[in-house]
Amino acid sequence: METVSTTRAHGGTQGVYRHASAATGTDMTFSVFVPDHAPGARLPVLWFLSGLTCTHANVTDKGEYRRACAEVGIVFVAPDTSPRGEGVADDPAWDFGQGAGFYVDATEAPWAPHFRMRTYIEDDLPALVAEAFPVDMARQGITGHSMGGHGALTIALRNPGRFRSVSAFAPIVAPAHVPWGEKALGGYLGQDRAAWRRHDACALIEDGARVDELLVDQGEADAFLAEQLRPELLRAACEAAGIPLTLRMQPGYDHGYSFASTFMADHVAWHGARLGR
Amino acid sequence: METVSTTRAHGGTQGVYRHASAATGTDMTFSVFVPDHAPGARLPVLWFLSGLTCTHANVTDKGEYRRACAEVGIVFVAPDTSPRGEGVADDPAWDFGQGAGFYVDATEAPWAPHFRMRTYIEDDLPALVAEAFPVDMARQGITGHSMGGHGALTIALRNPGRFRSVSAFAPIVAPAHVPWGEKALGGYLGQDRAAWRRHDACALIEDGARVDELLVDQGEADAFLAEQLRPELLRAACEAAGIPLTLRMQPGYDHGYSFASTFMADHVAWHGARLGR
Repeated sequence: METVSTTRAHGGTQGVYRHASAATGTDMTFSVFVPDHAPGARLPVLWFLSGLTCTHANVTDKGEYRRACAEVGIVFVAPDTSPRGEGVADDPAWDFGQGAGFYVDATEAPWAPHFRMRTYIEDDLPALVAEAFPVDMARQGITGHSMGGHGALTIALRNPGRFRSVSAFAPIVAPAHVPWGEKALGGYLGQDRAAWRRHDACALIEDGARVDELLVDQGEADAFLAEQLRPELLRAACEAAGIPLTLRMQPGYDHGYSFASTFMADHVAWHGARLGR
Repeated sequence: METVSTTRAHGGTQGVYRHASAATGTDMTFSVFVPDHAPGARLPVLWFLSGLTCTHANVTDKGEYRRACAEVGIVFVAPDTSPRGEGVADDPAWDFGQGAGFYVDATEAPWAPHFRMRTYIEDDLPALVAEAFPVDMARQGITGHSMGGHGALTIALRNPGRFRSVSAFAPIVAPAHVPWGEKALGGYLGQDRAAWRRHDACALIEDGARVDELLVDQGEADAFLAEQLRPELLRAACEAAGIPLTLRMQPGYDHGYSFASTFMADHVAWHGARLGR
């Protein structure tokens, strides 16, 4: 692992790191914020998965999580959203290819060789983070924004017991039923929709996957709300499954980082209460 | 005035606006955050002047001021740092020309026609802000970062009584005595150093200008501290003049927005206490 930069911020250290990922076969860049802590202490960790077009840098620059993480005493990890670089397949669209990995392991050409974001986020990066940072992997939470909310929900649902707390900002909750998801899952996984169900939060819940509870914030002025996000589908799935869902519709807020940063401290505190100090 | 964008954020409205400035003879872009407020209310206003290479966007994206401004009930205005565009003189260096206006009215060619940032910040933009936003111009504070700290200090010192509160983040306090300032003041104002004194905070204080008090935060790991910023010169000038200066040296912090955003809420609260609700 190579340190790209470290900067003191909000009573902790904001770092950016790069490593060669066995999962993606590429160099991957991610950021980690570590609050000041007692020597030898191991802190809970909150994973933040980003949305379409983003790298680690968007939430690192604009997410406004550091003050809250320092107060709560929680490590914040922000991965990239896809493999990148020469030799990695791409697509001219902003919602497919590089910057749009959708947290799946692609099976279709030309994506399969490098687009293995499920394995990267579920296995590869956690192993590195557990080794290189002062984290307590028994106390993990996960959240994300938009496509990253989809990632957070599906990864938590597929890995019962790994995350003590799960939340999302304006998540894609049912990719099999919205244009972004149909394009991405079809492109990366092929047209057999049965293979999509393990990558669709609502389908996973319908198929029996469970989490203890969910917190979701959603802006009511989000331009993607009705067509791409459809939180009512998550509400219905959670109600049918008996999963307690706190779905907060936020009047006036759109889909961007002004929205996510506004409610970031709430989410960090909510995770902190469930992860303990 | 044209609205470029408005976004709901932290219980208020973050806007970006563009107008044709009579001072610079160019279109100028700036951002304004307005907390939610009672109909007809007029809020105190805090001016934030940015540093070298910045536009309004740097602090707007990375400054982490909105939550604090909403809590305190204060409007936050972030102007650009120079005129820009076709027909505007520029220099290939990052510390001179576009993005580096130094808040002076240039007298030298080729800068004099458009580089009139003193008049822009002192007269032109305040007139627009007073007319277009719910602000109480009797309750103004000013702050800034680096070159913008220089701007905040010198504008406040030259306009006694206009600002109830003045602070700065890692300001250039004595441009006549540091490389950045010598290059800029020499380039924009010519080599007669007597003309520089009205644009040098320490010289203004030596020449009798006063403010009630000053708050300055400065990172101890700031790469520009010893050569360009030299807060000890401001300390000496304030001590000699009897100006109460709170100079907080912050261990480990560098010159970037990680530093500024860490102490932003402190500064907003400090201004708020002096500006009233």
